[in-house]
Amino acid sequence: MTDTDWGPLAQDWLDRLAACSEPGRGVTRLPFTPEHRAALDILRKLMEDAGLSVHLDAAGTLIGRCNGPDGAPALLLGSHQDSVREGGRYDGIMGVVLPVLALMKLRQNGVALPFAIEVLAFADEEGVRFPTALMGPRALAGTFDMAALDMCDRDGISLRRAMQDFGLSPDGIAALKRDPSDCLGWIECHLEQGPVLEQAGQPLGIVSGICGIERHSVTLAGRAAHAGTVPMTLRRDALAGAAELVLAVEDTAHRSDGLLATVGHIQTRPNVVNAVPGDVALTVEIRAPHDDARATARRRIERAAQHIAARRGLELDMRRSYAQAATPCAQAMTGMLRKAVQHHGHDGLVLASGATHDTSAMADLCPVGMIFTACRGGVSHHPDEFVSAQDMGHAVTALATMLAQLDIGQLRQSQALTPPTPRA
Amino acid sequence: MTDTDWGPLAQDWLDRLAACSEPGRGVTRLPFTPEHRAALDILRKLMEDAGLSVHLDAAGTLIGRCNGPDGAPALLLGSHQDSVREGGRYDGIMGVVLPVLALMKLRQNGVALPFAIEVLAFADEEGVRFPTALMGPRALAGTFDMAALDMCDRDGISLRRAMQDFGLSPDGIAALKRDPSDCLGWIECHLEQGPVLEQAGQPLGIVSGICGIERHSVTLAGRAAHAGTVPMTLRRDALAGAAELVLAVEDTAHRSDGLLATVGHIQTRPNVVNAVPGDVALTVEIRAPHDDARATARRRIERAAQHIAARRGLELDMRRSYAQAATPCAQAMTGMLRKAVQHHGHDGLVLASGATHDTSAMADLCPVGMIFTACRGGVSHHPDEFVSAQDMGHAVTALATMLAQLDIGQLRQSQALTPPTPRA
Repeated sequence: MTDTDWGPLAQDWLDRLAACSEPGRGVTRLPFTPEHRAALDILRKLMEDAGLSVHLDAAGTLIGRCNGPDGAPALLLGSHQDSVREGGRYDGIMGVVLPVLALMKLRQNGVALPFAIEVLAFADEEGVRFPTALMGPRALAGTFDMAALDMCDRDGISLRRAMQDFGLSPDGIAALKRDPSDCLGWIECHLEQGPVLEQAGQPLGIVSGICGIERHSVTLAGRAAHAGTVPMTLRRDALAGAAELVLAVEDTAHRSDGLLATVGHIQTRPNVVNAVPGDVALTVEIRAPHDDARATARRRIERAAQHIAARRGLELDMRRSYAQAATPCAQAMTGMLRKAVQHHGHDGLVLASGATHDTSAMADLCPVGMIFTACRGGVSHHPDEFVSAQDMGHAVTALATMLAQLDIGQLRQSQALTPPTPRA
Repeated sequence: MTDTDWGPLAQDWLDRLAACSEPGRGVTRLPFTPEHRAALDILRKLMEDAGLSVHLDAAGTLIGRCNGPDGAPALLLGSHQDSVREGGRYDGIMGVVLPVLALMKLRQNGVALPFAIEVLAFADEEGVRFPTALMGPRALAGTFDMAALDMCDRDGISLRRAMQDFGLSPDGIAALKRDPSDCLGWIECHLEQGPVLEQAGQPLGIVSGICGIERHSVTLAGRAAHAGTVPMTLRRDALAGAAELVLAVEDTAHRSDGLLATVGHIQTRPNVVNAVPGDVALTVEIRAPHDDARATARRRIERAAQHIAARRGLELDMRRSYAQAATPCAQAMTGMLRKAVQHHGHDGLVLASGATHDTSAMADLCPVGMIFTACRGGVSHHPDEFVSAQDMGHAVTALATMLAQLDIGQLRQSQALTPPTPRA
């Protein structure tokens, strides 16, 4: 195998895995289903080809392991096997295939790593089948809530039952908790799901961290009125107030580097052509790589909403419906990944991940890092999702280089310096 | 009867008429129904008490007439008998009762008018039962489209059939067309349906004209995107563009005296908390007493929409879905009504009507004028609709004064000067 062969080989395995799908458009592979089983059979074969010893843990995570020197801690790599409904063939599963190929490449080059390696294929990250997700990494980090086992899918099958039918013993999940001292770190390779790398003409990017997210439900109540009989000066138009807020949200994001703020949902009453809107409900979502930047933005948006409401005589209600703290990647990990990417002639562009990943949960266990591949048109969660074989090849070689050059001491230091953050 | 008695008397008749309603909240009196019949029986009695000779024309308009001196032309007064579903007890029907009481007052005072008088109760102005309206005044003006007779209500009963079942001969409508030279003018008394008079502390107002109306359907198409992965600078957020347009519409109205502009309806796709909106559909409605002001506002809004779309990379589609020209009231009529209102110590506040009335159609026949009564809280088309007996009393005395002082020559001149405007 030469370096240019790894990309097409990755594509080949991903094509075989994409066939493990419910019928229909794109890929639909939900956890603890026959499609999941079929994908694991292929991944097991792939891992065994790379010389890994493979087992399925009690949380449904397929683990391929290569021991290091006596008692050496393990570097963990991987991602999730599942897809959304009618999704693509790269999201998640590519992050299982590429590290295995990187290990094959190292093996081919006769490189023996001074630490253990595990490649993990988590069962469920998308949370499509059950109203929970990230069971695999949470089990390893010891943050899994066993009550989630009683959640049911739309056919009324509980997560516990689905796992048992899959041949698993969910009661064994508690015992999966890893000792942080056994884990050097975690690396996830994922497609960007956004347009930044493509626009920058870069195959790979290094993730600085996973954005924290908060969501707010906002209502503005004015007075519905006949659009023909109430003069402009006597109106309390909830939609006009909402329009100001939408622009204040956008402006707030523009003022803070890397921060994203979105009004995605808006609903107006009575919502007819000849009535002044009396009520508007809308959502505000804020994502930022730094929680303090997110808090600053939230306060700015709150103040804007209060000013708008006061000036227009509207009643304002704004309440947070969701919050999740940011997950910074370990600087040591980010630095090593970047060095490896630059080693192969790429910029090593650093960007935040606005989307959540398995990495969010793994950060409770050990230092984490992520590498993004460019994603055509920023399209993801869609049958048209596409990562080029060439870019996947770049990822394999960068990962192999990073593993070969990995500085254990630096990672250990990083782990000592940054204890796991309490999760919101 | 003293002047303070007319208001309570009006309230008394309106209470009896309000009982002519389908069961349920408020008043529901649709045309060519048993409720319509019951209301006409009461109105006939009222008109006969005032010495009018009463008949029902082929369009279902109840007409009470008092002849003037030999062959003298007639001044027409009135409004509509029908209501919206679960409406109030004043909208329309008050404009039939008050002129009859004004005639009673003149009769009591021994005033003989030098012209004929007709009080009209049109069958259908609200257009609730059939998808057409204003049949009564259109029949008189010769603008009724006979094809409307084939329109059906929600039970599949055609307008023609409903009228026949009501005892009418719809084929006689064409013969109802009046000779303009027989008509001195038309006066409608209506509740304001807005808050202007109440805020000004005035019982009565004079209508300068009925606003023209135009409506537009606007779509803005950007690109739906993951709210976590697409940076602010790469977004084409249709809702942010729509927000700018909503504010531009409002600002346009504020810049033009008496002009109303409203975004009443807005719909966003995909309309979820974590997606940048890709598409927005909204409506823009513009009402103005002067058509040129409305056209200026429309051009301003169009330019704003084009600029917003160009700057944000959105595709814009804006198309007019409805247009109706303004109906200016005859200056001579407005002047005489104002003089009469001021004669009784009120300001004679002049305002435009943003809502459409029977007067719109009567303007094709003769000089028109309208007088508004104050309306509690601006509430109309609702069971809470309320006009005080005192304010109705003021309207009766002002109408009586106006009739007694009416300058036929001035009206005739007005008619000669302002030929009926072609309707949009």
